Amino acid sequence: MRMGESVEWGLHCCVTLGWLRDQGPVSIRRLAAWFDLPQEYLKKRLQALVRAGILTSSPGVRGGWSLARPPEQITVMDVVTALEGAEEAFRCAEIRLRGESGRGGGAEFARPCGIAGLMRRAELAWRRELAAHTIADLMEGSPAGAERTRRNYQDMTG
Amino acid sequence: MRMGESVEWGLHCCVTLGWLRDQGPVSIRRLAAWFDLPQEYLKKRLQALVRAGILTSSPGVRGGWSLARPPEQITVMDVVTALEGAEEAFRCAEIRLRGESGRGGGAEFARPCGIAGLMRRAELAWRRELAAHTIADLMEGSPAGAERTRRNYQDMTG
Repeated sequence: MRMGESVEWGLHCCVTLGWLRDQGPVSIRRLAAWFDLPQEYLKKRLQALVRAGILTSSPGVRGGWSLARPPEQITVMDVVTALEGAEEAFRCAEIRLRGESGRGGGAEFARPCGIAGLMRRAELAWRRELAAHTIADLMEGSPAGAERTRRNYQDMTG
Repeated sequence: MRMGESVEWGLHCCVTLGWLRDQGPVSIRRLAAWFDLPQEYLKKRLQALVRAGILTSSPGVRGGWSLARPPEQITVMDVVTALEGAEEAFRCAEIRLRGESGRGGGAEFARPCGIAGLMRRAELAWRRELAAHTIADLMEGSPAGAERTRRNYQDMTG
């Protein structure tokens, strides 16, 4: 089980755009150069965050990318869901109903499968943790990162 | 992010072999027919559980598959790890160190990244939940399943 690399990209871009939100939109060229990422592929992945209402992008010379809402209102779960989808990692195909196993289940099979239930509870524990933290929390957790980001962006654009 | 279908297969096979453990080993032909699964592919996946010390398999007419240790000593995490690997789902490539972002980080970069830390805590919450439950718990959670399984296996083999 593996998340796409764009989860790291998306979270770092959101935190960076949070730190730079008084600088106006950031161009995709600069965002890609910021983390040394492939520009077109980064753009494609960030468009998923636009569709989810997490980022906005505007065209033109002074256009670029910025957070669509305050970083306090963007959870880490929001970003992960936008990039990885909302489906559960464990897919239950109800194999208990099939073959020899499935004969004579009757009322028993009206109850949810204990295996699926446990897998769901584990994923809920994971989701709860990610939903309890926002982009603002990540920004506050790294004051040195905020300072470095603003300084390096000044050097890049000044 | 998606788990392989064999996680459902592996967990159901372990629970079923737990319920049938006084019946001797179960052949791969019967296990596959039990859940209407492709026999060769199921065998390949179950061999990962043998390598992890969760199942044993023995050759011959009276051979077959059984739990390698008591169901109380097999956690759901053990089975998931054997089938999906022990790596974390979130891979941190430390992109914060690259490009313009990485300039002048110094002592800051000696500290773990807050994003990677949060993703790790969330996965730990998931792992804790799966490690807290055993195959025996799943067996006990479904007394009707135990009864159905023993009855249907009797019909199949009798």
